[in-house]
Amino acid sequence: MPGDQSPGRPRPTRRQLLFGGAVAGFGAAAAVGADQAIRLAGRPGPAGAADAAADASPAGDGELTGSGVVPFYGPHQAGIATLPQAHATLVALDLRDGINRDGLRRLMQLLTDDAARLTRGEPALADSEPELAHVPASLTVTFAFGPEFVRRASTAAVQAPAWLRPLPAFGIDRLEAAWSDGDLLLQVAADDPFTVAHAVRMLLKDTRSFATVRWTQPGFRRARGSEAPGTTMRNLFGQVDGTVNPAPPTLDFEQLVWIREGAFAGGTGMVVRRIRMDLDKWDRLDRSGREQSVGRTLANGAPLTGAEERDEPDFAAKNAAGFPVIAEFSHLRRARSENTSERFFRRAYNYDDAPSREQISNSGLLFIAFQADVDAQFVPIQQRLDELDLLNEWTTPIGSAVFVVPPGCAEGGYVGEGILG
Amino acid sequence: MPGDQSPGRPRPTRRQLLFGGAVAGFGAAAAVGADQAIRLAGRPGPAGAADAAADASPAGDGELTGSGVVPFYGPHQAGIATLPQAHATLVALDLRDGINRDGLRRLMQLLTDDAARLTRGEPALADSEPELAHVPASLTVTFAFGPEFVRRASTAAVQAPAWLRPLPAFGIDRLEAAWSDGDLLLQVAADDPFTVAHAVRMLLKDTRSFATVRWTQPGFRRARGSEAPGTTMRNLFGQVDGTVNPAPPTLDFEQLVWIREGAFAGGTGMVVRRIRMDLDKWDRLDRSGREQSVGRTLANGAPLTGAEERDEPDFAAKNAAGFPVIAEFSHLRRARSENTSERFFRRAYNYDDAPSREQISNSGLLFIAFQADVDAQFVPIQQRLDELDLLNEWTTPIGSAVFVVPPGCAEGGYVGEGILG
Repeated sequence: MPGDQSPGRPRPTRRQLLFGGAVAGFGAAAAVGADQAIRLAGRPGPAGAADAAADASPAGDGELTGSGVVPFYGPHQAGIATLPQAHATLVALDLRDGINRDGLRRLMQLLTDDAARLTRGEPALADSEPELAHVPASLTVTFAFGPEFVRRASTAAVQAPAWLRPLPAFGIDRLEAAWSDGDLLLQVAADDPFTVAHAVRMLLKDTRSFATVRWTQPGFRRARGSEAPGTTMRNLFGQVDGTVNPAPPTLDFEQLVWIREGAFAGGTGMVVRRIRMDLDKWDRLDRSGREQSVGRTLANGAPLTGAEERDEPDFAAKNAAGFPVIAEFSHLRRARSENTSERFFRRAYNYDDAPSREQISNSGLLFIAFQADVDAQFVPIQQRLDELDLLNEWTTPIGSAVFVVPPGCAEGGYVGEGILG
Repeated sequence: MPGDQSPGRPRPTRRQLLFGGAVAGFGAAAAVGADQAIRLAGRPGPAGAADAAADASPAGDGELTGSGVVPFYGPHQAGIATLPQAHATLVALDLRDGINRDGLRRLMQLLTDDAARLTRGEPALADSEPELAHVPASLTVTFAFGPEFVRRASTAAVQAPAWLRPLPAFGIDRLEAAWSDGDLLLQVAADDPFTVAHAVRMLLKDTRSFATVRWTQPGFRRARGSEAPGTTMRNLFGQVDGTVNPAPPTLDFEQLVWIREGAFAGGTGMVVRRIRMDLDKWDRLDRSGREQSVGRTLANGAPLTGAEERDEPDFAAKNAAGFPVIAEFSHLRRARSENTSERFFRRAYNYDDAPSREQISNSGLLFIAFQADVDAQFVPIQQRLDELDLLNEWTTPIGSAVFVVPPGCAEGGYVGEGILG
């Protein structure tokens, strides 16, 4: 989790460092020009690291949560390396017929301007409720393009990433069109649900003549300030979820997440999966069965061979009966590849919809993964889990979409200019 | 708004006072026995006042939002005088056929036990995800009974309040059964959406053999700590909403809200209305038109005859053309009765559901009002607004329900014991 890297450092120093770093980082980027900044971004190093950490936890002690501002402009879009906010709404849009490259450019110019203003805590240019804009609450707006957007936007000179297409069919999938695919994705996240609601509305108003809403998925995590910083999220099964996650601003994160070359350098690949979790069935499983299914304890998320959450699992360890302590079918074992490049960055949210009459819960995970290459990093892991993963008994993917996230832009530019400019 | 009474006072003193008061108040209640405490509760005075304020803002400076605990036991149920938390989910249940008075007693004993534990940050007795229970985040669980619950629960000795029935039909209503009525209401509120999700699930599990879900309505306000304490909420129209609201722990609040006599003394009447707000139409109205419709400025909520939010409106003031500055059709004028007993306590939430393809927003207000007598306090005001209120152009009630909230209970007792015991 992104918070993991910080607990040891004293707070004022850390904030000073981060804000100082952010300003220096962006100043440097601006000085070399946006293009170069984007190229720099693909490279690990002090500048990239400062950038990735810049937007973690902007509201410090004694400040209002609502006053936190995450910089919108920069070599990468915000909302990826950003410490996950408490609320996120994902909206997928279908482009209207006849919207061509010029239309998409106008659309992205409009949306970029809206997002830049709203994330600063200012009203959008045609904001109909300007009084609602003054609580940014670490708002980020992240834009991502589906295959059809890139097809309409591209010229012969631009190659869409080969992986920009629906994922291969998995045996466990029960996909519904209502939760899948989309031409343009807006990920709107903040620590205040009201801020998210207002921003989504302002952005959608400007998409109206270009697109229609395909699906909307709101998600939540623990409220900001609810738990100690650095606590790994639990999902609605009660499991510690996301212990092994490359944390920004490490070199590991930079290398796994950012695209290095081509029109999307500085961007990333985004997989969104809606995973229904059958809590009612899960509740019939005893505690030991639940721990076996994941390979971690429920109490603190330690591997069944360890004592602490971050202990390395010992896959060779056997119990008295001679069976592996961490079972072959456990999620922990199945999700780990021997190939260390088969990893990605998770930034998931929970969902909890209204149950129907005889249901107790209609809940699950809004799984969001970022990686430079979806085919090389995400697909092999998902194939392993599709083959065998005890957790599949209680989880069902019901939605799936793949997007390319273009890089960020400098002030005066717009998101998508690399293919639309 | 409940926060209004506090801004002037220094924080540590206030917290000390509140916690001290709460403990003393409940100690006193326990000493005289639950019955007497409930009778006391109907009476305004130091004990009642301490109780009403006790659960406001339990997590102070430097504490985690998640660690806030609102006392469950007491003469009144929590979640009414409690400073509104950021998130609330209302669940209305239909009782299954054949659940009689004994069944209802068992149900309320189970639910009381669950609520008492969960609000302390402890797992419910049969908690299937105990690790999710440790972040109370000022959780409150409030139980309210619909007409059918009281009919099945009552003996000849108990009179249901005369107002415990659907509201009279209003001309503006476009009620949908899916958002209306219900036999048993759970209002589950906390400053952390995850806490609400877990508590709702645990409670619903224990209702399973007694009832089915009729409707579920989640709502939100600004995140805790997002704005300065004492800021009046804005609704999704951008209006300051709830300036004139009897604030706990005042005598005014006590007198308007709590039932004084009979089996429900210490309880209150609860009106839940789902009010769709047509934001798309609202956006076509100019700023002046919006201010006229309410009678207040958008900038700070001041009456159009004043400068500050809390200035008294001057209904006699005329503009240069000789028309009233605060128009006859304005919400501010129509919602105010000359009869000062025609008032109630509002504790509303916003909702923002997924829009359909050509919609921008599907949003509104989860209007919640508490008053001792629904017929005497709520209905006359609603009739005035039904006759004439310019805001009706943009708002439509699509759900409506009336419940009686029984009083709280002491440790060892259960909510509803006044009619089920």
